[in-house]
Amino acid sequence: MSNEKITSTRAANYSEWYQQVIKVAELAESSDVRGCMVIKPWGYALWENVQRVLDGMFKATGHVNAYFPLFIPVSYLEKEAAHVEGFAKECAVVTHHRLELRDGKLVPTGLLEEPLVVRPTSETIIGASFAKWVQSYRDLPLLINQWANVVRWEMRPRLFLRTAEFLWQEGHTAHATAAEAVEETMKMLGVYAEFAEQWMAMPVIQGEKTAGERFPGAVQTYCIEAMMQDHKALQAGTSHFLGQNFAKASGIQFTDDKNVLSHAWTTSWGVSTRLIGGMIMTHADDDGMVCPPRLAASQVVILPVIRKPEDRPRVLEWCRALQQELRAQTYAGTPVRVELDDRDINGGEKKWQWIKKGVPVWLEVGPRDIDGDSAFVGRRDKVKDKSVGTKRPDLVAGIAATLQDIQDTLHARALAYRTEHTKIIDSKAEFYAYFAEPAKKDANDPTPIHGGFAMAHFNGDPKLEETIKDELGVTVRCIPLAPGEPGTCPFTGQPSAKRVVWAKSY
Amino acid sequence: MSNEKITSTRAANYSEWYQQVIKVAELAESSDVRGCMVIKPWGYALWENVQRVLDGMFKATGHVNAYFPLFIPVSYLEKEAAHVEGFAKECAVVTHHRLELRDGKLVPTGLLEEPLVVRPTSETIIGASFAKWVQSYRDLPLLINQWANVVRWEMRPRLFLRTAEFLWQEGHTAHATAAEAVEETMKMLGVYAEFAEQWMAMPVIQGEKTAGERFPGAVQTYCIEAMMQDHKALQAGTSHFLGQNFAKASGIQFTDDKNVLSHAWTTSWGVSTRLIGGMIMTHADDDGMVCPPRLAASQVVILPVIRKPEDRPRVLEWCRALQQELRAQTYAGTPVRVELDDRDINGGEKKWQWIKKGVPVWLEVGPRDIDGDSAFVGRRDKVKDKSVGTKRPDLVAGIAATLQDIQDTLHARALAYRTEHTKIIDSKAEFYAYFAEPAKKDANDPTPIHGGFAMAHFNGDPKLEETIKDELGVTVRCIPLAPGEPGTCPFTGQPSAKRVVWAKSY
Repeated sequence: MSNEKITSTRAANYSEWYQQVIKVAELAESSDVRGCMVIKPWGYALWENVQRVLDGMFKATGHVNAYFPLFIPVSYLEKEAAHVEGFAKECAVVTHHRLELRDGKLVPTGLLEEPLVVRPTSETIIGASFAKWVQSYRDLPLLINQWANVVRWEMRPRLFLRTAEFLWQEGHTAHATAAEAVEETMKMLGVYAEFAEQWMAMPVIQGEKTAGERFPGAVQTYCIEAMMQDHKALQAGTSHFLGQNFAKASGIQFTDDKNVLSHAWTTSWGVSTRLIGGMIMTHADDDGMVCPPRLAASQVVILPVIRKPEDRPRVLEWCRALQQELRAQTYAGTPVRVELDDRDINGGEKKWQWIKKGVPVWLEVGPRDIDGDSAFVGRRDKVKDKSVGTKRPDLVAGIAATLQDIQDTLHARALAYRTEHTKIIDSKAEFYAYFAEPAKKDANDPTPIHGGFAMAHFNGDPKLEETIKDELGVTVRCIPLAPGEPGTCPFTGQPSAKRVVWAKSY
Repeated sequence: MSNEKITSTRAANYSEWYQQVIKVAELAESSDVRGCMVIKPWGYALWENVQRVLDGMFKATGHVNAYFPLFIPVSYLEKEAAHVEGFAKECAVVTHHRLELRDGKLVPTGLLEEPLVVRPTSETIIGASFAKWVQSYRDLPLLINQWANVVRWEMRPRLFLRTAEFLWQEGHTAHATAAEAVEETMKMLGVYAEFAEQWMAMPVIQGEKTAGERFPGAVQTYCIEAMMQDHKALQAGTSHFLGQNFAKASGIQFTDDKNVLSHAWTTSWGVSTRLIGGMIMTHADDDGMVCPPRLAASQVVILPVIRKPEDRPRVLEWCRALQQELRAQTYAGTPVRVELDDRDINGGEKKWQWIKKGVPVWLEVGPRDIDGDSAFVGRRDKVKDKSVGTKRPDLVAGIAATLQDIQDTLHARALAYRTEHTKIIDSKAEFYAYFAEPAKKDANDPTPIHGGFAMAHFNGDPKLEETIKDELGVTVRCIPLAPGEPGTCPFTGQPSAKRVVWAKSY
């Protein structure tokens, strides 16, 4: 029977549960290549929807796409010292351009004069192009995005969250003034936040990173941070104001309208397939994946319930007609994505497959349902449908509302969860107690889970942050953009401008 | 003045002309990384449109997308001998996973136990996944597509046509029977042909490759071949029936409904950014790029003609309204893509920039045009507009028809060009004369261009084909699918089933 629940729960073993969800939902799997994953069709379709929506948002804010080389000459990396520090440790390095068969084994030959790095990020190689493209203030702003794969060698890979190769987009822009570049940085942070909230149903806190968590070479790094169901924070997207650092390293210069030569001000911003890990850990439950309706590969699946073979043609015909009617409806700007699963396999097993995959709505249709011109409506968020009847015309007319209701429910739940596990903390003792891992009583005891997000004042001292990181594994996830009151740092008694978000993180 | 013509013509120096078109149209440029190109926004948008349309066609024929690792263990390549032969010679090989700074230089460290190859194609790594995914006939057919970058080290790179890294899609399917796999192979060939003809306005000949031109490891390779303006053939897409070769190499096995274990039958098929090279060499002229309307990044550009500053607000307002009206029109399934170029630069220069970029339609709008509620309509195909008036309502209502008329004109011209330069040849002497490069009289003499496509009989002997290749640089581009009469091979006097297409090629 594959209509069993997955073999772990969030409470029992969170990490095992995460792996299981990915497996039973057929989202991805590990490959034989260390740290690299295979993204399976159901998982990749989530990414395609992420791409489609974000790409539209980027274009609506004036950006165009381009494509830059996969390989970066090692000498490019050497140009920006902080960047070298940040990326050189974990690069795939191409040293040869040929293989030769010797004694039945392929061995590398054709040594390259200069080794090439598989891009861990494209700042340096895009910088080289920008330096050619930008001459005058008339060439600015330059607003470019790239959808690409990047590689950062990972010693402890986890599907979607941390893989050696991952898919992402990286925006790179150049501006004539610092103010414009800062405005761009904040605008794209806002795009990410809107996407996370509206499309992923994932509440996020927008904020700035402390110096210790900044992108190597950035002047300021902003991020969106979300809470996962183990109370850890996931950095889901970043937007960097790079000042003139990369422009100086790459030679991006322009003459202004008074013919004065200056370095441009640049930004970069990115999100990756990590977002899918975020969706899983925000919404999935002990039955498997729960896809937010706006990004689900299929939003509705129709499951014909056929017990007698002679019912088959009639039931399938009705289901096909229903599929067409539903597909004619629009939700979130696209036709409703409806699948009809007419595979001739056990009905209970089939239903459980879809529950595990996290399809937002399933419709069960048997001969009796057809007699009543209705269908059973199952909602993956487990809310009994209240918005529409199950009569076919109501179901069809109300499908967009049902999907949005699920979307809203998922968002509200995630927000409530975050609120529940966020605490205002004003003393060091309480802070340390909050983040202490409860002891595991025995092997059967659930995975201990610490407090969650702590909103505490902080004097901003990098050394203090380092100490807390060493002692608790907790860092400042961000200094929220939202207004806050000044107060006193509970660790030092010194003044603090506002509370910051402390958490353990992925 | 940048409203000059590009500095070479097709007749004077075809190869130089091709480079110039790419440069002035801002389609792409070489990078510092050997053989790798930067695809600039105007060129990348063509690729985005190719992707959007083809992806829709793949999905309409039942395929889903997935993503497989960039890296392939060398041992995977060793599994299929023909494949090794075909790809091992030109691979980027990753041997290290770290860089360390020594005396200011980054040097590779962290030697990998097994080298990794940057995928030249993904048959072997996708095969490894298919072997896991396929157990029973119920798992078949498996219809997967991947959009990805691949790397084949190129000693003589040419932008779009032959670059070390290129973007492509690769379809990989597994089937229970040979007949189904062959049907899939032909279906996807048909999809490519339809796309080339309908969307790229590029006439193609569908046919089968001879053994010498087959994909390494394939049982049969089918292709679409197009004629470029130097009379050479461009292989624009291929579809391979792989028999059970790759299934055996990768262990893709299934039990049929009688519980008998068999190897699956597989196919693969792909097109790449080479298609953009094909578009350029099919449609571009001595003024620059000519984009087929259905794939053009912008289909219409509005050029305000402002001589007195006080006219500016009024002209721009009218142009913006026109842009909105045009964008509300639909062409080939999407809203018409309309740009308003309100940059404050010389009008003639601006217009020439757009001509060089190959925008299908430009509209010039000055105060007098506005007084007459009309605009000047420029067509990049240089056909004087006959289908619609230049009065604004006619222009708006007729824009889709105008774009389609340009699309049709480009296709008809390309087809006429191919017909003109295709000859039925029945003697060896005529064949050799047809393909001889005319001698170049002096440095100012145009690039000599040989005949074109020869339709000649062929006995099918690989050695004969090899001899002709050595002597003339001419190969059998394909054995056309279209019906043909049997006849006599002009080289051997032996019987021939039908005429084949002989040509020089890219």
